[in-house]
Amino acid sequence: MHWQSVTIIGVGLIGGSLGLALRRAGVADRIVGVGRDAKRLSEAVRRGLITQATTNLEEGVAEAELVVVCSPVDRIADHALRALRASPRRAVVTDVGSTKRSIVRAVERYGAQEARRFVGGHPIAGSEQRGAASARDDLFTCRTVVLTPTARTDPKAVLRIKRLWESVGARTVSMKAEQHDRILASTSHLPHLVAAALAAATPTRYLEFAGTGWADTTRIASGDVDLWVAIAMDNRKPLLRAIEKFQNQLERLRIALAGQDTRSLKSALRKGKKHRDALGS
Amino acid sequence: MHWQSVTIIGVGLIGGSLGLALRRAGVADRIVGVGRDAKRLSEAVRRGLITQATTNLEEGVAEAELVVVCSPVDRIADHALRALRASPRRAVVTDVGSTKRSIVRAVERYGAQEARRFVGGHPIAGSEQRGAASARDDLFTCRTVVLTPTARTDPKAVLRIKRLWESVGARTVSMKAEQHDRILASTSHLPHLVAAALAAATPTRYLEFAGTGWADTTRIASGDVDLWVAIAMDNRKPLLRAIEKFQNQLERLRIALAGQDTRSLKSALRKGKKHRDALGS
Repeated sequence: MHWQSVTIIGVGLIGGSLGLALRRAGVADRIVGVGRDAKRLSEAVRRGLITQATTNLEEGVAEAELVVVCSPVDRIADHALRALRASPRRAVVTDVGSTKRSIVRAVERYGAQEARRFVGGHPIAGSEQRGAASARDDLFTCRTVVLTPTARTDPKAVLRIKRLWESVGARTVSMKAEQHDRILASTSHLPHLVAAALAAATPTRYLEFAGTGWADTTRIASGDVDLWVAIAMDNRKPLLRAIEKFQNQLERLRIALAGQDTRSLKSALRKGKKHRDALGS
Repeated sequence: MHWQSVTIIGVGLIGGSLGLALRRAGVADRIVGVGRDAKRLSEAVRRGLITQATTNLEEGVAEAELVVVCSPVDRIADHALRALRASPRRAVVTDVGSTKRSIVRAVERYGAQEARRFVGGHPIAGSEQRGAASARDDLFTCRTVVLTPTARTDPKAVLRIKRLWESVGARTVSMKAEQHDRILASTSHLPHLVAAALAAATPTRYLEFAGTGWADTTRIASGDVDLWVAIAMDNRKPLLRAIEKFQNQLERLRIALAGQDTRSLKSALRKGKKHRDALGS
C-alpha cells in the first residue's frame, strides 16, 4: 500500500509521530500538515514530520487520499466533518481520538455518504508529554489501534485504515465505539483521574520523601489538563461507572484495614497483583 | 569512616544492595549476611553481596560493629532486639523498615541501654522487584534515608548511621518516627493500595487495551503482598487517614464529572498536575 497524499490535521505528539512513521516506512509521498500556528507548522516541516503545511483545513484536504484527524477530542467531530466535505469523494477519513462514540455518532448523523468513508480510530499510544517536539517515529510500534467502524462504513475504507496502521508497526482491533469507550474508561481515563487525585492528596512538602512508587503512580497526572477534561466530559457515563467500581475496590481495602481484617486485605492486594502481573512489565 | 565488621540481617533487595554498595565504596572489610536459607546465602556470597554468611542471627552479630536489620517489617523489632542483645556493647544497630513507630517503640520499651544504640532508619529506595537477585550497588545513590532517633538515642550512634548512608551515596534526614509514618502513609503506602485497587478494578480481558498510563499507575501493585499487608497493618491509622483524604479528592472529581461541572473538574486536575510537576520526572 502506498499513499500519494496524506493529510494530518493537528501536528502534535500523535499527528507528528504518525507523519514521521509514515515517512520512515516510505509509504507516503506527500504529507500535508494542517494546524493553527504557521510557525509551529514550519518547524514540523523542517523536522520532517510533514512535507508541507497549511493553516487552512479545507485547502489541506483538497487533494488528500487519506485524512487523519489528530485534533483534541472536543474538536475531532467538527474537523472530521469539514474534512469529509472538502476532501475528494474517494478519500478515507479517520481520527485518533481517545473517545469514539460521540465522534462516530456525529459523522453518522451528518450523512450516509460521509459515514461510508469515515473510520473511527484510536491508537493506544501516547505519553504525558505533548506536542510535535516529542514526536517519535516508533510511537506506534507494537501498539494496538482500535477501529470502530459501523454498519454504514465501507469495508474497503476499514481495510485501508487497517493497512495504514500496520504500515507503522501497529496492530488493529475492531469493535463498537461504545465498547471502546467502556474499556478505555477503565484502562485509561480512570487511571488519569486516580493519578490526579493521588497527586492532589499529597502535600507538596511531602514530595522530598516520595519514591519511585509515588512517581510512577502519579506520572500521568502531569498530562495536559484541557485535553483530559475534554476526554472525561465526552466519556462521562462510562467513566462514572469505572470510578464507582474503583471506589468500591478501594473501600473494601479501607474497611479491611480499619477492621484489622488481614485476610481480606491480603486477598484484595492479591487480586491487584494478579491483574497487574497479567500485563507484564 | 571504615567498618571492620558489618552484619546485614535479611539479604534481599535492600540488604543485598547495601552489601554491594558498601563493598563498592570500600568502607567495610567483613560483611556478614544473616538469613534463613543457607543456599541463598551462599549465592549471595558468590555474587559478592556479602563476604560470609550464617543462618544463626546471634552468631552473625557476635563481632559486629554495625548491624543493619533488613528483614520484613513485621520481623524487624524482634530481629533488632535479638541483635542488640547478642552484639558487642559498642555495636550500633539500625534498620531499613518502611514503618518506624512500632519498631522504635519496641526497642525503647525493651531497655534504655538498647535504645541508646539503636537508630531507626528507612532508605526511600526500592522496587516492585524483590530478593537478592535484584540487588544493585547504586540503589541508594541520590536517595533519601529517613532516620528516626529519639531522646534516648546516643547522638554518636546517629552520626555513625548518617555516615553509613552517606558512604553509599544517600543523604539523611532526621525526624520523629510518627512524622515519618504519617508522611510515608501518604507518599508510599497509600499509592500502593490505590494501585492495587485500580488493578483489581480492571477486568483482565481489558488489559490488551491498557497503555503505558495504566502500566505506570498500577506498577507497584505487583509488589510482594505479604510485605505490603505487614506495612499497611503496622501503619494502620496514618494510612486510614491518607486513604480518606484521597477518597475525598476522588469524590470531588466524581461529583464534578457527574454534575458536568467543567470548572471544578479542571481545577482538581490542575491541582494534581501542579503537585506532580513539582516532583519532576
